[in-house]
Amino acid sequence: MGILCWPMLIAFSNFGKLASIAIGCLIGFPVAAAADEGMWLFNAPPLKQLKEKYNFEPTPQWLEHLQKASVRFNSGGSGSFVSENGLVITNHHVGADTLQKISSQEHNYLRDGFYARTQTEEIKSTDLELNVLMSMEDVTARVNGAVKPGMTSDQASSARNSAIAAIEKESKDKTGLRSDVVTLYRGGDYHLYRYKRYDDIRLVFAPEQQMAFFGGDPDNFEYPRFDLDICFFRVYENGQPAKIDNFLKWNARGPSDGELTFVSGSPGKTDRQLTLDELADTRDRWLPYLLRMFNRREVLELAYSARSFENARKARDDLFGDQNNRKRYDGYLAGLLDPQTWSALRAREQKLRDAIGRDPKLKSTTAAYDRIKRAEAEIAKNAPLYNYLEQERPSTVGYRGPRAFSGNLFKYARLLVRTIDERAKPNGERIPAFRDSAHESLELELFSTEPIYDDYEILRLNDSLTDFASQFGADNPLVQKVLAGKSPHARAVELVSGTKLKDLAARKDLYGKEAAALQASHDPMIDLARLIDRPARDARKIYDAQEETKKQAYSEIAKARFAIEGTSNYPDATFTLRLSYGTVRGYEQDGKQIPAFTDFAGLYQRSAEHDNKPPFEIPQRWIDKKSALDLSTHFNFVSDADIIGGNSGSPVVNKAGEFAGIIFDGIGRDAALRRRRSVQRAVPTNF
Amino acid sequence: MGILCWPMLIAFSNFGKLASIAIGCLIGFPVAAAADEGMWLFNAPPLKQLKEKYNFEPTPQWLEHLQKASVRFNSGGSGSFVSENGLVITNHHVGADTLQKISSQEHNYLRDGFYARTQTEEIKSTDLELNVLMSMEDVTARVNGAVKPGMTSDQASSARNSAIAAIEKESKDKTGLRSDVVTLYRGGDYHLYRYKRYDDIRLVFAPEQQMAFFGGDPDNFEYPRFDLDICFFRVYENGQPAKIDNFLKWNARGPSDGELTFVSGSPGKTDRQLTLDELADTRDRWLPYLLRMFNRREVLELAYSARSFENARKARDDLFGDQNNRKRYDGYLAGLLDPQTWSALRAREQKLRDAIGRDPKLKSTTAAYDRIKRAEAEIAKNAPLYNYLEQERPSTVGYRGPRAFSGNLFKYARLLVRTIDERAKPNGERIPAFRDSAHESLELELFSTEPIYDDYEILRLNDSLTDFASQFGADNPLVQKVLAGKSPHARAVELVSGTKLKDLAARKDLYGKEAAALQASHDPMIDLARLIDRPARDARKIYDAQEETKKQAYSEIAKARFAIEGTSNYPDATFTLRLSYGTVRGYEQDGKQIPAFTDFAGLYQRSAEHDNKPPFEIPQRWIDKKSALDLSTHFNFVSDADIIGGNSGSPVVNKAGEFAGIIFDGIGRDAALRRRRSVQRAVPTNF
Repeated sequence: MGILCWPMLIAFSNFGKLASIAIGCLIGFPVAAAADEGMWLFNAPPLKQLKEKYNFEPTPQWLEHLQKASVRFNSGGSGSFVSENGLVITNHHVGADTLQKISSQEHNYLRDGFYARTQTEEIKSTDLELNVLMSMEDVTARVNGAVKPGMTSDQASSARNSAIAAIEKESKDKTGLRSDVVTLYRGGDYHLYRYKRYDDIRLVFAPEQQMAFFGGDPDNFEYPRFDLDICFFRVYENGQPAKIDNFLKWNARGPSDGELTFVSGSPGKTDRQLTLDELADTRDRWLPYLLRMFNRREVLELAYSARSFENARKARDDLFGDQNNRKRYDGYLAGLLDPQTWSALRAREQKLRDAIGRDPKLKSTTAAYDRIKRAEAEIAKNAPLYNYLEQERPSTVGYRGPRAFSGNLFKYARLLVRTIDERAKPNGERIPAFRDSAHESLELELFSTEPIYDDYEILRLNDSLTDFASQFGADNPLVQKVLAGKSPHARAVELVSGTKLKDLAARKDLYGKEAAALQASHDPMIDLARLIDRPARDARKIYDAQEETKKQAYSEIAKARFAIEGTSNYPDATFTLRLSYGTVRGYEQDGKQIPAFTDFAGLYQRSAEHDNKPPFEIPQRWIDKKSALDLSTHFNFVSDADIIGGNSGSPVVNKAGEFAGIIFDGIGRDAALRRRRSVQRAVPTNF
Repeated sequence: MGILCWPMLIAFSNFGKLASIAIGCLIGFPVAAAADEGMWLFNAPPLKQLKEKYNFEPTPQWLEHLQKASVRFNSGGSGSFVSENGLVITNHHVGADTLQKISSQEHNYLRDGFYARTQTEEIKSTDLELNVLMSMEDVTARVNGAVKPGMTSDQASSARNSAIAAIEKESKDKTGLRSDVVTLYRGGDYHLYRYKRYDDIRLVFAPEQQMAFFGGDPDNFEYPRFDLDICFFRVYENGQPAKIDNFLKWNARGPSDGELTFVSGSPGKTDRQLTLDELADTRDRWLPYLLRMFNRREVLELAYSARSFENARKARDDLFGDQNNRKRYDGYLAGLLDPQTWSALRAREQKLRDAIGRDPKLKSTTAAYDRIKRAEAEIAKNAPLYNYLEQERPSTVGYRGPRAFSGNLFKYARLLVRTIDERAKPNGERIPAFRDSAHESLELELFSTEPIYDDYEILRLNDSLTDFASQFGADNPLVQKVLAGKSPHARAVELVSGTKLKDLAARKDLYGKEAAALQASHDPMIDLARLIDRPARDARKIYDAQEETKKQAYSEIAKARFAIEGTSNYPDATFTLRLSYGTVRGYEQDGKQIPAFTDFAGLYQRSAEHDNKPPFEIPQRWIDKKSALDLSTHFNFVSDADIIGGNSGSPVVNKAGEFAGIIFDGIGRDAALRRRRSVQRAVPTNF
C-alpha cells in the first residue's frame, strides 16, 4: 500500500480495556498544487529543496539518526524503532504476513489481534527478517570496471554479477553485516548497502484486523479513512531485547495542519525513469497480465474462503495481498491509459531526447532508446516461459515463485534444488539469492516454521497447473511432462500428499545433501522442481541478458541526464531506504474540500451508514467503549509526501526527528496521477 | 446451472406464515453405473430405450401433453405450466433476471422475495418472453436445397440464411406463431419449430434469495443441497390470465427412491458432437478466455457491491450469473484437462473415423475433420475482433453484446443502429435477430422498462473499455478512435451521461427513424455503435463464413454417423425442447454413500455448522417457524437424468405425467465427467 496511520497516544498498559485510548491515525499522498516529489537517497538528500522551500536544514546527525531508526521488513514493508529496548512499529498489513503464519485454528491473531502483557508472552515470528541500513558506499567504478569492451550482453552480465558477488562477500566477511550491492538509476550507479540484520522478531501487539483495515477493499486507497493500521514487534539479539541507540522519540501531539513532515522508508518500485517504449509494454502487456493473475487469485481465494471459517483464516493474508495488488495495479493502468498523462510523459521524454540530440558528446545515447525497445520486445516474447517457470519478476523481497507452481511446498523444492546446484558453483557465478552473502536469509526462508495446509496447497497448485495448461495448451510437451498423464487436480493431490517437504526436519536434512542424494530421495515435489529446472534456467538466461542490455542503455541515458540536468535528482525506488517530505494538508476533490484529518466520530458515523456490516463493522469492544473515547481525537491524516508500496509502515517524522505518524496507504488510482500531472509531475508510479 | 429443487407440497395460502409448509426440493445429475444419457427430441423420443430398460411406453398423447406444458424462458431457462389459469413454475435463479429488473431501492424482491396475495398484486415483468413449443417440422431438404454446388462458404451461408428467413416468415405469416428454424446435429438437420409466444408475464411468488440459493457459491454445483430454488409467474393474454389446456398436475408425494422420472426442458448447449480439434480449441483457448472474463467481472462486481447495500442490490443478478458461469466453466475445463476423459474422447472419435475410412461411400468425409480444424483456426484468429466488437458467441438467448462495450445503454444503441440498417435490407439477407419473424422479440428487448443506473453503467463500460485497450494495446487505431482522446473512465462518463437512450420514449422515437435521422440525433452512444459497426460486421462475416464451413463439414460427419450408427441418436443441445429421463437415487462419492434425498433437518444443521453466517444464513422467519416444520420432510433430491444449463426450472415428471419436482442444478466440475466416463459416457458437457 503506502498511506499514513498515526497513533497519537496509545495507552498500552490499558489497551486490553481500551479505557483511556486516544488514537490518531492519518493518510498521506503527493497531491495539490505544490506537492513535494522525490524519494531521496540518504547519501544525497534534498538539502537545497528543503532549504529553499521550507528553510529547513537537516544536520548530518539528524539524517543519520533517522536512517538508523528506520527498519526494513524483508517481507515487504517499512517500520521504525520507537524504544531503546527494540520496539518496532509498522503497519498491521505489513505484520499480517507474520500474524497469519503464527496463527492456528485455535488462535486467529490476524483477525482477532494480540497483546503481550509481558515480554515472555511475545510470540516469535516464523521467518521474519528486519534490516537496518548502517552505511552506503559508491562502488560503481568497480562494478562497471568488470565489463570489458567487446563483451556480449551475456558475458557483461556474468562479469558484473561476479564483481558484485565479490564486493558483497568481501564486505560481509569484513563487517559481518548483510551486504547488498544496489543498482540505482537503472544501471547508472551501484551502491554497496550494509545492513544490520535481525531475525529474532517477536510480536508485541496487533489490533483486530477489522480496526486495522476498517472499510476493507472499498475504502482501500481512498480517503477519508478510519484505520488503526499498526502493529508492534520487538527485535531480539541473543535471546534478549536488542539495545537500540537510534530510536524515534514518540510525539504525543501528532502533526498539525500545514506542518512539514518527513517519511523514511523503503519504497518498493517506481517506473519514473522508464522509456516510453518500456512504459507502453508495461501498459499493454505487463499490467494486464498482472491484473488477470490477481483477478484469478482473488476469485479462487474468495470462493475457498466462503466454504468455512477455517478456510477464510488460512487464505486471509493472501486474499488481502491479492485484493490490494489488484486495486493498486488497476489504478496504475488507469493512469497510463489517461491520454493527458501519456502526452506529458511523451513530452518529458522528448525534451530529454532533444537535448541529447543537440549535444554532440551525448548524441550516441539516442541509440540506447532503441536498444531498450528491442530488449523489452525480447523480454515480452520470453515472458510466458519466464513468468510461469522461473518467477514473475526478480524480487528483492524474498522468493517470488513461478506462476505455474503456486504454494509453499513447491517453493521449498525449488529452493532446495537451486541451493544445492548453486553452491557447487563459484560464489560469483551464482544466482544472487544463493550467494554466500545471502545464505542466512535463504535459510530463514527455507527453514520457516510457517504452517502448511494440504488442502490449501492443493487448491493453489491445482489452480496454477490449470492456468499453466491454459497458457501453453494441454498438448504442449512441457505441460504434458509436468502433469505426468494426470489432470491438474490429480497431479496436485499426488504432489502435495507425496512430498516430505512439509516437515522442517526433512528440509534441513535434504539441505545438507549433495545433488545426487537429493535426487535419490525421490520426493515428487523435488522431482518436479528438477524436471523444470533446465527450461526455467534457460528462460532466466534470456531474461537476464536482456535486462543487462537495458541496464547498459539506461546507464547511458542516466549519464546523459546527469550531464543535462545535473545530479540533483533521485533514482527510481528499489526497496531501499529513501527520504521523502511533504506537508500535512487537505485537498479538493470533485469540487469538495477534504480536510487533512479524520476523527473517531467519523469512524462511528461511517460504520453506522453501513449498518455496522462487513467490511464496515466495528469490533464489539470498540462499540462498548465508545463513550470512553474523545470522539474529536484525530485518527487518520493526509500529507503530500511522495510514497509508494513498500513505504507502508514508514514513520512520519517532524522537524525535531520525532515519530509523529505512520504511513499506511496512498491515494491511488488514476486520481492521484491526475493530480500529480496538474503539478507538472506526470510520472507514473506504482503505489 | 441445471439441478433439481422439488416443492413437494407448498401451501401457498399459508406461505406468508410458513405454518403448514411441507417442502421437498431435490437435485439431479447423470451418475452411477447405469446413468441414462440423452437429451432427446420430442419428435424422436427414446421409445426403444424406455421400453427395454424400464418397460415404459409413453403414448403420443403423453408426449404431446408434456411438450405443451413445458415453457421456455427466453432469458435462459425452463419452466412448466402447473395450473389452468397460467401459473408457471421455474427456478428462482431463472426468475432472478426479472426479480432484479422489477426491484428498486425501496423493494428488493430479488433478496427479500415476493408474494402476490391476489392477482391484482402480481407484478408485470419488464421484458420477459416465454415460448411454448407447438410443432416441429423437418425442413432440411429445403434449407440444403438453397446451397448450390460451387458456392463459396460465404455464398452458401447467405443462401442458407435466406432460405431459413423465408421459411420462418412464411410460417409466421401463416400461423401467427413464432417460427424458428433450428440447426440440429450441427448442420445435419434443420427443423422448423413453432412457438406460442407470451410476453405479458407477471410475478406471483418468489422466496427470499437466501432460501433459494442457500449455501451460495460454495454449495453451487454440489450435493447434498438445501435450496428452495423456485418461483412462480403467471402468463397473461389480453390482460387476463391465459387459459392453459396442457398443464402438469401437481403430485403431492414427490418421487420415491429408485423411481423413473422425466425431465422436459431446454438444455442450452452441449459439445458432445464436436471434433477433437474443436474441443482442443475449446480447452486451450475458449474456456480460458471465458474464465478470464468471468473472473474479471466477478471481481469488479464484488468490489462494487462491497461499497454499499444499494450497489450490492444493483449488481446482484449479474454477480450471481458470473459466479455461476465461472464455476460451471471451471468444471468443464477440469473435465477436458483430465487425460482419461480426453483419451476416451479420442478413442470415440477414432472409432468413428476408422469406420468412415473403411466405408468407400463415406471415405470422402474424412476430409471434413480437417476442414473443421482449419475453420476453427480461422475463428481463433478472428476471435479478438469478433468477441470484443461483435459478440461473444451467437446466442439464441437474446442479445449477447460485444465484450468491449458492457452495459445496457450500448446494447440499446447497437440494437437501434442495427435495426435501422437491417430493415432496409430484404428479409432473407438480415442478421437473424432482425428478421421479420423476430421483430416482436426484438421490440420487447429494446423497449424494456428495466431500470438503468448511471454509476453501474459507467463502472461496467469503464471496465470493458479498459479491457479492450489492454487486449489490442492503447496505440491501436481502433482503440484510439473508440476512446476519442480520453481515458476509459472519462469516455465512459461522457457516453453514459450524454446519451438519451436511458429514456424509453427516446428509444421508441429513434426506432421509428431512418438511418440519416439516427445519425442526426448525435447521441454519443449511437455514434459509438455506428463507429464500430463496420469492423464489427467484418468480424461477423469472417465468423459466419467459417461457421458455415463447419456446418457443412459437421453435416457430412452427421450423415456418416447416421449411416454407421443408425439414427437412434440425439443432437447436441441447442436451447430447444428435449426429453431426458433417469432414476432418483443416491450415489457413492469418495467411498461415502450420499443418499438421494435431503431434508429440512439437514438445512438447519448445515446453517448451524456455519454459525448461520452468509452464505449459510437462514432468514429469521424460517428460524422462528422451525418448530412448525416436520424436519424429516424431503427437501432436495438427485436423479441421474441428463441435464445441463438451460434445463434450470425444467419439471421433473413421473410416469403419470405429473409434476414431481424441478431441476435446479447439476453436480458439475470434473467429478461428474469422471463418473460419466466410468459408465462409458466420456462426453464433455457444459452443465
